[in-house]
Amino acid sequence: MLIVMDHLASQEQIDAVSKRIRSLGLMPQPIPGENRVAIGVLGNHGYVDEEPFRDLSGIQQLIHVSKPYKLVSRDFRPNDTRVTLAGNVTIGWSEAPVTIAGPCAVENRDQVLTAARAVKKAGATVLRGGVFKPRTGPHTFQGVGYEGLEILAEARAETGLAIVTEVMRIDQLERVAAVADFLQIGARNMQNFDLLKEVGQIDKPVMLKRGMSATVEEFLAAAEYIVSEGNEQVVLCERGIRTFETALRNTLDLGIVPYLRQLTHLPVIVDPSHATGRRDIIGPVAKAALVVGAAGIMVEVHPEPAQALCDGPQALTPGDFHRLMRELDTLG
Amino acid sequence: MLIVMDHLASQEQIDAVSKRIRSLGLMPQPIPGENRVAIGVLGNHGYVDEEPFRDLSGIQQLIHVSKPYKLVSRDFRPNDTRVTLAGNVTIGWSEAPVTIAGPCAVENRDQVLTAARAVKKAGATVLRGGVFKPRTGPHTFQGVGYEGLEILAEARAETGLAIVTEVMRIDQLERVAAVADFLQIGARNMQNFDLLKEVGQIDKPVMLKRGMSATVEEFLAAAEYIVSEGNEQVVLCERGIRTFETALRNTLDLGIVPYLRQLTHLPVIVDPSHATGRRDIIGPVAKAALVVGAAGIMVEVHPEPAQALCDGPQALTPGDFHRLMRELDTLG
Amino acid sequence: MLIVMDHLASQEQIDAVSKRIRSLGLMPQPIPGENRVAIGVLGNHGYVDEEPFRDLSGIQQLIHVSKPYKLVSRDFRPNDTRVTLAGNVTIGWSEAPVTIAGPCAVENRDQVLTAARAVKKAGATVLRGGVFKPRTGPHTFQGVGYEGLEILAEARAETGLAIVTEVMRIDQLERVAAVADFLQIGARNMQNFDLLKEVGQIDKPVMLKRGMSATVEEFLAAAEYIVSEGNEQVVLCERGIRTFETALRNTLDLGIVPYLRQLTHLPVIVDPSHATGRRDIIGPVAKAALVVGAAGIMVEVHPEPAQALCDGPQALTPGDFHRLMRELDTLG
Amino acid sequence: MLIVMDHLASQEQIDAVSKRIRSLGLMPQPIPGENRVAIGVLGNHGYVDEEPFRDLSGIQQLIHVSKPYKLVSRDFRPNDTRVTLAGNVTIGWSEAPVTIAGPCAVENRDQVLTAARAVKKAGATVLRGGVFKPRTGPHTFQGVGYEGLEILAEARAETGLAIVTEVMRIDQLERVAAVADFLQIGARNMQNFDLLKEVGQIDKPVMLKRGMSATVEEFLAAAEYIVSEGNEQVVLCERGIRTFETALRNTLDLGIVPYLRQLTHLPVIVDPSHATGRRDIIGPVAKAALVVGAAGIMVEVHPEPAQALCDGPQALTPGDFHRLMRELDTLG
Repeated sequence: MLIVMDHLASQEQIDAVSKRIRSLGLMPQPIPGENRVAIGVLGNHGYVDEEPFRDLSGIQQLIHVSKPYKLVSRDFRPNDTRVTLAGNVTIGWSEAPVTIAGPCAVENRDQVLTAARAVKKAGATVLRGGVFKPRTGPHTFQGVGYEGLEILAEARAETGLAIVTEVMRIDQLERVAAVADFLQIGARNMQNFDLLKEVGQIDKPVMLKRGMSATVEEFLAAAEYIVSEGNEQVVLCERGIRTFETALRNTLDLGIVPYLRQLTHLPVIVDPSHATGRRDIIGPVAKAALVVGAAGIMVEVHPEPAQALCDGPQALTPGDFHRLMRELDTLG
Repeated sequence: MLIVMDHLASQEQIDAVSKRIRSLGLMPQPIPGENRVAIGVLGNHGYVDEEPFRDLSGIQQLIHVSKPYKLVSRDFRPNDTRVTLAGNVTIGWSEAPVTIAGPCAVENRDQVLTAARAVKKAGATVLRGGVFKPRTGPHTFQGVGYEGLEILAEARAETGLAIVTEVMRIDQLERVAAVADFLQIGARNMQNFDLLKEVGQIDKPVMLKRGMSATVEEFLAAAEYIVSEGNEQVVLCERGIRTFETALRNTLDLGIVPYLRQLTHLPVIVDPSHATGRRDIIGPVAKAALVVGAAGIMVEVHPEPAQALCDGPQALTPGDFHRLMRELDTLG
Repeated sequence: MLIVMDHLASQEQIDAVSKRIRSLGLMPQPIPGENRVAIGVLGNHGYVDEEPFRDLSGIQQLIHVSKPYKLVSRDFRPNDTRVTLAGNVTIGWSEAPVTIAGPCAVENRDQVLTAARAVKKAGATVLRGGVFKPRTGPHTFQGVGYEGLEILAEARAETGLAIVTEVMRIDQLERVAAVADFLQIGARNMQNFDLLKEVGQIDKPVMLKRGMSATVEEFLAAAEYIVSEGNEQVVLCERGIRTFETALRNTLDLGIVPYLRQLTHLPVIVDPSHATGRRDIIGPVAKAALVVGAAGIMVEVHPEPAQALCDGPQALTPGDFHRLMRELDTLG
Repeated sequence: MLIVMDHLASQEQIDAVSKRIRSLGLMPQPIPGENRVAIGVLGNHGYVDEEPFRDLSGIQQLIHVSKPYKLVSRDFRPNDTRVTLAGNVTIGWSEAPVTIAGPCAVENRDQVLTAARAVKKAGATVLRGGVFKPRTGPHTFQGVGYEGLEILAEARAETGLAIVTEVMRIDQLERVAAVADFLQIGARNMQNFDLLKEVGQIDKPVMLKRGMSATVEEFLAAAEYIVSEGNEQVVLCERGIRTFETALRNTLDLGIVPYLRQLTHLPVIVDPSHATGRRDIIGPVAKAALVVGAAGIMVEVHPEPAQALCDGPQALTPGDFHRLMRELDTLG
């Protein structure tokens, strides 16, 4: 950590900071400048807590050199994590990219089975489908609940696809984990830290979606919550952030994918459906995601988007999806 | 709702939209323009669901005239909601502004009692103090847990202050509600919809903090989750949003306060501590919050900010807080 | 345009709006809802000015169906614009993608000629190099000025590359246009409307960079300034926007490229150097830009990035650039 | 400056950085950490240029301790700058707050004289009115041009108000400065560096508006352009920034005002009209601006907002303005 002193800081204030650093068993290293002094903190093992320095007077700024995460970083583990789902699906930076597809929400048996057969045939290996749906307002469809799990299990039995579904509450975890192969934590829950800790204690792979206003650092720190409880089977899912630009549903910077590859051994997949919100833009963005090196994509597919109870405009038809998969084949 | 057709939409596509509108028991009203046609939807009672229109081809945009919330709006209830806490504290747009003060986190008995006595003496009527703390990374102080509730209760017994504390998990609700007068839902949980529904079923006032990337519309829709479960005792807390500007901790637009006063009957208070993150800016912003008409403020006060386990740099000392309260007196 | 009335609007207020609409030679079309009335405006040719409606009381919101640009839209001209530079370079949505490369700033003859030979050999067809540099603060390198133009011209004469360089002031236009093949308007000047009007009167192709906080609509409206003065040879350059995320230099959403392709006939190229600000991320983003259909890319290349007077960390070496071009070849 | 090395940086890379620092006449100061080394740069006078360090391999991040501005900082000049306009108006942090009022745009003689008399009577001391108007698209009113200056001069002659008007082009400067008392640089031109340099060479006070995506640091660096050319009579005008929140026209964080007061000796005024875009929110925000210590406010006033050619919805009527001024009186 670097402690930048105010330009008006007195020698007493500077000395007080140095003394505090020493009291923590660390070493102060003054760095004088023209207008102000900065003090380096030496000897720490990992992230230095800000608290002990916070109220000393005369401090202008605390700058961290270390990061608020460690276990998920390349510094800590240089080799890629490989996340294996039932059904022989493996997700990792150097694996063949995975394709997760299916409806936003489980609506009924026919809808799910039709979608599952179609995405299987087109080449997907994981089926998505929410049984609990987070919705902005309370007056819209909220998901079919637990009975949807049985429909997903039936689709898996028939097609061999692994299944991923979202958990929103801690008390859902046990029943959902008993069925699903892969547990999704949604963007709105990326900083629901209690939920993160609980999925950290379960022996199931977890997909953590980026929060819509989360920085890359916060995204990794959220994953750290899961990994530090013991569950190292974590896949990150980039789905764009909220900005002033509303032309598309979110703002997706694909440059973040190779950047994350430098920072973390956890694989990163991309969700072009939520990123764009528009059927006609999903295809190009999905291709671009693979080109920048994403470990996979997750795409919404619905047998009849016009009848979808949720996110219809960003769902591909089975035919669209089939064509997209053929185009992705040509990238390889 | 207004459905704007693509400029290339065919008459068949326009007719299909009109037919769909009629099939829902509503009336289409075409509005031809130079380049494109828009179709008004008439006859609806409240928010029109987008789903049935979504996958019809030839549609460029769906524009809502109604909003995704209703019960919390002035349209629905013109008169101010008055939220009453134990201890004869009432919060409302036309009530005397409330002052909530105390430490970020409950650390120990001495700290809380010292803070409580100081904020009581300076004129606050509600004591804040978190026993569970949401933190970005897992390697920092996470709160003292349930035993902190007894400390808060002791401070209330001695000072007569009402107490507010945050709930983060559904399974904490019962024990926390048995002690606290006022339940806080934090910014990170503003869209933890299951938690919102549960506090909606409890007979305790709730303070809902704005999410750091929530729009005003989403903020009100989140409150709608609580109110639609039956709990109408909701106070909104504005604490700034996340933007590109990092000079202060968050970006707080106080113009939102009078704007919300037009939209909702629920009272809005302001948290200048989290908004600014800097002790030296809290005072001016607190005063400005009252000048724009906020129903109250919430301020962090710690007996020794330099020793605080959480958010020290944004905590006032008891002396600072006393001076601030005297300055606020002069505004009235 | 749609005029949404306040839910408390009186019949008199509604009538006043209708009367104002008729006074403009247009037709009001009321669309009653449950809580409020909206009034469609019919009969307009293009964008309806807001001003005449603005201060009528009882209006909640004005919603435009038409856009503040016309000449640059696909509605107006369905066929792609093809922009031709001297040197037989043509830029257009359906043309082979163009590659523009070279140093951020012209520093000296050796630097430019070395860069020009290298980028030509690797396959670029346009040489970039700024002779005037907009810099955040006044105490850094501001460009070599007009003499740089002669260096660029020499590089063109030797290599056959077309040259593009930025103009910042109206009084530079004539001298720069006498030499350059392609005039760049930088991001900071995207809404320097007087400069836009002046380049609109010149017979030279123009590259307009997106402003760092410009919406897609404002970006197209800025291009409309140039085209409405008569210069239709405009290329748009997407280079990312400013958001809360600072991991990379800007936030580049490549989904905007296919979205713009739907809205405008003007070609769009992408600048991965400014978008990312990091040498190691430029390559993947450049490839992704071509995959989403961009009409070209602009990349910074410097013979010795470590010695660059400007933007060194985002410049590729000639060797890096050569390798990137070979990778791009494999995409086609 | 602090240079943070990559955790994989070799000793050779670290040595190369130290050598480069020494070659610039500065001193390297290594600060070893657990995972990586940082190197402090000692001995600099002011801002250290990044360029010479940029392409050395093994560097993760460059962190500036000094800022890209100096002359405008409190570090450089602790005492407040007082800006004096003709007409005995003085603007400064410790002066009585100034009120600037008048129409967005000069439309005609009657409109300006009516507005001038009204704002004078209500207590304003400076009249605003644009003769050149920057507009998003080319198909709307662009201002009356130079003849508007004579109207403003007539209003000044009659009322004694000082006058402020915007300059957009360098070639307008001489004619505008011959008449106006105070030159406005608009938000879109905050980084039109050539225009800044030119107004820096003129002997007239300048009001610099914050760009809609400018950081505080960039805002001050833009002012530095003017001051470093010799013109120290600069007033900063905060008018909000662009964010994802569109409830109001811009997002205005008033905490920035006391924050700027710490950083700079230049006075800061606030424009609540552009910040909010809504007549009904201007009043509370204007009051709050004075409460946080702004050196003044600028408010749009139009005799008949309903007929305004520009920004009608954010203009106060003379009656509204008179009432606002009476309310502001009670704050003092």
